[in-house]
Amino acid sequence: MHCVRFMAESSSAGVLERDFLVGEVPGVLWSPASALGGAPLVLMGHGGGLHKKTPAQAARARDMVTSWGFHVAAIDAPGHGERPRTAADDRARTDMRSAMAAGDHERFKAVSIGYTRSLAARAVPEWRATLDALQRLPSIGPDAPIGYGGGVSMGTAIGIPLTAVEPRISAAIFGAGFFVYEDLLAAARRITVPIQYLVPWDDEFVTRESAFELFDAFAAREKTLHANPGDHRRIRWIGLDNEFLPRHLGRATAPTA
Amino acid sequence: MHCVRFMAESSSAGVLERDFLVGEVPGVLWSPASALGGAPLVLMGHGGGLHKKTPAQAARARDMVTSWGFHVAAIDAPGHGERPRTAADDRARTDMRSAMAAGDHERFKAVSIGYTRSLAARAVPEWRATLDALQRLPSIGPDAPIGYGGGVSMGTAIGIPLTAVEPRISAAIFGAGFFVYEDLLAAARRITVPIQYLVPWDDEFVTRESAFELFDAFAAREKTLHANPGDHRRIRWIGLDNEFLPRHLGRATAPTA
Repeated sequence: MHCVRFMAESSSAGVLERDFLVGEVPGVLWSPASALGGAPLVLMGHGGGLHKKTPAQAARARDMVTSWGFHVAAIDAPGHGERPRTAADDRARTDMRSAMAAGDHERFKAVSIGYTRSLAARAVPEWRATLDALQRLPSIGPDAPIGYGGGVSMGTAIGIPLTAVEPRISAAIFGAGFFVYEDLLAAARRITVPIQYLVPWDDEFVTRESAFELFDAFAAREKTLHANPGDHRRIRWIGLDNEFLPRHLGRATAPTA
Repeated sequence: MHCVRFMAESSSAGVLERDFLVGEVPGVLWSPASALGGAPLVLMGHGGGLHKKTPAQAARARDMVTSWGFHVAAIDAPGHGERPRTAADDRARTDMRSAMAAGDHERFKAVSIGYTRSLAARAVPEWRATLDALQRLPSIGPDAPIGYGGGVSMGTAIGIPLTAVEPRISAAIFGAGFFVYEDLLAAARRITVPIQYLVPWDDEFVTRESAFELFDAFAAREKTLHANPGDHRRIRWIGLDNEFLPRHLGRATAPTA
């Protein structure tokens, strides 16, 4: 069982940012500079080709810390950020690029699904080990409410199977923008916690119908679909229910400095 | 030009409720018990077969008054609430019921569209006259920001043509749940103010595709679609961006008692 090893630390505007390793997996933990007990922990999964500190994700994380006193953790997905890619990962990426260049949508879709499934199969146990380690930090502890805080696209393709098997997660933000496949629908059917679900309304790769099929699959009694105009790369975090996470996770038990 | 004639007044839990007439049109105005200047005014349109004080609508109105210091106005649609129905209204309602009983969906749809268009044609000038009159009240005035605060179904079938011709409305909440027709799409294409748009995800009468066609028609740069599971009658006002109206309209310039 791994512990969190903190590798670097900085602080600005009331947010403590600590790089860490759990085993070989690099992550980052954003926390209130003066954390008090009982703060929820939100896990964030980045999109394909991006990494744990992608600016948009880091900005959302910092906002959660300062608005609600949350801890927010992100890790690099396999073959992303600081992590090496396997030969199979490289092949999949090359194949996706060549299929795209050839305009072969069916091949692009098939390779993309295979690659995503492989990443999710590796990432789910990494997230669970990271969660185990984070819960052993005194500032978080075993009783902190835990949410999955988003990431559309690949962040959701990993977050759905994670949430399906992880009873510690009690609310989740997911987003469309990737090809839906049967394993993923099966995982969604096991999820009963409240879901906020974002759809990039004009995704150029993925049909609306497949995004709806995934939304319909969630077994959650409370689930809301949000769609803003925009393509795959320009998902906009506006017009949403911003109180979704604090409503379900609570807030820190006292204000943080 | 008509004035607001107040007919009855009551007050509870910090909300002043005043019944009024503008010409022959009966309405209700909910206001903070101690209103200050600069409070926005929100117009609410009820659904088909309902009326200006339908409990769910009255509860939303009171919540807006106490949360943000808004004024909220509702009027009875033609042939609804306290208002007489024309012979043509009665015929349309009888035809809709018999088409529904016969399972004749196409006829139900055709009659429903004809009836809705007729109601909207009458209601739009009534709303504009009501707005003129409300703006002459000292507690509201000509500079109060104005929003259309919803009503799915018929409330939207009236609200869309109203917002299309009414430059005083600067943000609007609409909802699906009725048959979409060409006039309405044409009106939607003229609307550029921010839109929050609710879709009853499992509407038993109206297809999702027609709800999406209407959403796509809005010329607004900022528009967000929200869908919760549920049928036509059970639209749920949860999981939404509750800050939509105060973000676009502002709040009262000072807290209200």
